[in-house]
Amino acid sequence: MTVYTATTTAPVNIATLKYWGKRDKTLNLPTNSSISVTLSQDDLRTLTSVSTCETFTQDKLFLNGHQESLESERTQMCLKDLRSLRRALEESDPSLPKISEWKLQIVSENNFPTAAGLASSAAGFSALVVAISKLYKLPQSMSEISKIARKGSGSACRSLFGGYVAWEMGDELDGSDSKAVEVAPLEHWSNMKAAILVVSADKKDTPSTSGMQTTVKTSDLFQWRIKEVVPKRFEEMKAAIIAKDFTTFADLTMKDSNSFHATCLDSFPPIFYLNDTSKKIIKLIHSINEFYGETVAAYTFDAGPNAVIYYLEENEDKVFGFLYKLFQNVEGWDSKFTSERLSALASAFNDLKQSVPFPLDEDIQKGVSRIILTQVGPGPQDTEESLVDANGNPKI
Amino acid sequence: MTVYTATTTAPVNIATLKYWGKRDKTLNLPTNSSISVTLSQDDLRTLTSVSTCETFTQDKLFLNGHQESLESERTQMCLKDLRSLRRALEESDPSLPKISEWKLQIVSENNFPTAAGLASSAAGFSALVVAISKLYKLPQSMSEISKIARKGSGSACRSLFGGYVAWEMGDELDGSDSKAVEVAPLEHWSNMKAAILVVSADKKDTPSTSGMQTTVKTSDLFQWRIKEVVPKRFEEMKAAIIAKDFTTFADLTMKDSNSFHATCLDSFPPIFYLNDTSKKIIKLIHSINEFYGETVAAYTFDAGPNAVIYYLEENEDKVFGFLYKLFQNVEGWDSKFTSERLSALASAFNDLKQSVPFPLDEDIQKGVSRIILTQVGPGPQDTEESLVDANGNPKI
Repeated sequence: MTVYTATTTAPVNIATLKYWGKRDKTLNLPTNSSISVTLSQDDLRTLTSVSTCETFTQDKLFLNGHQESLESERTQMCLKDLRSLRRALEESDPSLPKISEWKLQIVSENNFPTAAGLASSAAGFSALVVAISKLYKLPQSMSEISKIARKGSGSACRSLFGGYVAWEMGDELDGSDSKAVEVAPLEHWSNMKAAILVVSADKKDTPSTSGMQTTVKTSDLFQWRIKEVVPKRFEEMKAAIIAKDFTTFADLTMKDSNSFHATCLDSFPPIFYLNDTSKKIIKLIHSINEFYGETVAAYTFDAGPNAVIYYLEENEDKVFGFLYKLFQNVEGWDSKFTSERLSALASAFNDLKQSVPFPLDEDIQKGVSRIILTQVGPGPQDTEESLVDANGNPKI
Repeated sequence: MTVYTATTTAPVNIATLKYWGKRDKTLNLPTNSSISVTLSQDDLRTLTSVSTCETFTQDKLFLNGHQESLESERTQMCLKDLRSLRRALEESDPSLPKISEWKLQIVSENNFPTAAGLASSAAGFSALVVAISKLYKLPQSMSEISKIARKGSGSACRSLFGGYVAWEMGDELDGSDSKAVEVAPLEHWSNMKAAILVVSADKKDTPSTSGMQTTVKTSDLFQWRIKEVVPKRFEEMKAAIIAKDFTTFADLTMKDSNSFHATCLDSFPPIFYLNDTSKKIIKLIHSINEFYGETVAAYTFDAGPNAVIYYLEENEDKVFGFLYKLFQNVEGWDSKFTSERLSALASAFNDLKQSVPFPLDEDIQKGVSRIILTQVGPGPQDTEESLVDANGNPKI
């Protein structure tokens, strides 16, 4: 029995211009275009292997070592679209094996704890769709394939590219022009770094799908956001990325995060993702930028309290003087820094401390469980690793 | 030496359609019209006595027993306008004493602690302006006088009327049509009650004057709020008050509070007045309304974390079943309720408890220091009390 297998990695992406609101729920068509930075897979990635064999009797999914249901409508749509593209290939070239008719085994693992509250569905659906595209040897471009990932999880489409990525909302009813495109590759602006402050949430947030629907239906301010605010910002942010203009990029990123959370608050009933710790982090970043008289860091928050701080590598000491001082007891610093470097950061800050004109609220640390230090990274990657054995079954 | 004196009380008002944004900073001309409910002076009021005598050598102000500066530009504008109206009277009737030329002593007291974080400037400027108008025997209507109070503190103009009050923004450059008018008197809808939950703030909020300026200058969503959202809501809320339609009134009140705070969050840097306790109160009110399947309570928040809950007297047991259960340890219940009534509320809730489908977060109480139980009330009142003696000096 021939077993076909393929494996890919896929990254997490964090939007700098937010996706919030669907104009079509089934197809995941958004009410506005969005932009994201793809993060390094050294720190955050999904690894997915897929296998297919004529003898497999059902589609199966294994996530982080556990078999999971494949029944979700979203996953089914992705599988259907991918099989249909494979079938077209098989019809045009009868010499190809008819693997579109065979069942699939999908085995997937994250290198970061799901509990961290980082949206893993983008990396997950991106890896699933890319792995099967490879298995099926589909000739379609990444942008074409991104439309399938989009049906799985809207923001997953942006994880098909590395670097700086736009999701063009499109305007076709069938979603045929709602796809991810590259704004600039990783190499264009490779010194973009990101620090994720994992903020403890005291309860479950409103799920983003239902939250979005509430906002679309009830927020008066949202209509203005999607019609006037985001379209202008979309062009400005693409231009800032191309010009490597961090100040503009950072200001737009922070403003768009605030605008998105403002429309959540304007929903009825209102939706809250930022908590008091998130707000303290926002104030801290503004204070740091004000202290240096330049924009050295930008915050952004998705549908939860975690902060993602973007900054340029050359400003790391400036940013981390403050962040290490305030968050030195949280986990994660030693993943990237030697203890010598951390001591140097601490003592550099102590020299500076006298001239800091705002109070350093050391309580802020209590609301944060972990820091993840990462940076802009590439799109889905080929890898020698595989999560399936020669029979196409999950390795134990 | 003849000493002339006058005394008035003036109420606090809490906006249900928020004033946020000035189109003219000096004249306190707003970017949108607003609506408020005037609260009972049994619970919250300023008492102000004024005196004038030819021998007084300077204008003096005594607030809650302490002499304060009268130098503020805002107070000076009010005194100037009032003196100018008096002068016009004296010119038209030469038999009148020329008291417009004499110095004033102003003595003022609140019946509630300033520390509670309740905006006392509305009641304060309203009382000051009304007391001097009485002293000067000005013939102008309350709406005319409200324009002077407006220059002292924008929302003070609404404290010149009882019941339900609109501040019409006007469109003249000189502010001559930016004034308070009565939407409906107290008697029209006298069963409106209010419970103020005083929420502990962990730091000083952004002052509202500078906060407003930041929002006007930087929030994209704000422009839509003032052009489209508020004008529509203004008419709808007036109609709901006239129809005594609590459901509509409550929905608009909650939505407008959220919309105002959303534009604060959309400001750059963002402004936060709601804290985690405020948000828990918002969620609680939505849960209570959902539980009963009708809108029995509405929240609104000014430029701070305190919640004002409006409800109708006939729904007091429904609302207080929950509020007393959750906030029974905070100060203030015994100001209005006997211990028998409170026990009855507690036991009624215990019977109900089994059927409450949402978790009761008893931690919410930790963030609240006090409850103030009050209701809709009348405008400024004459009173037999006086804070000045026969010589026009503050009583000790």
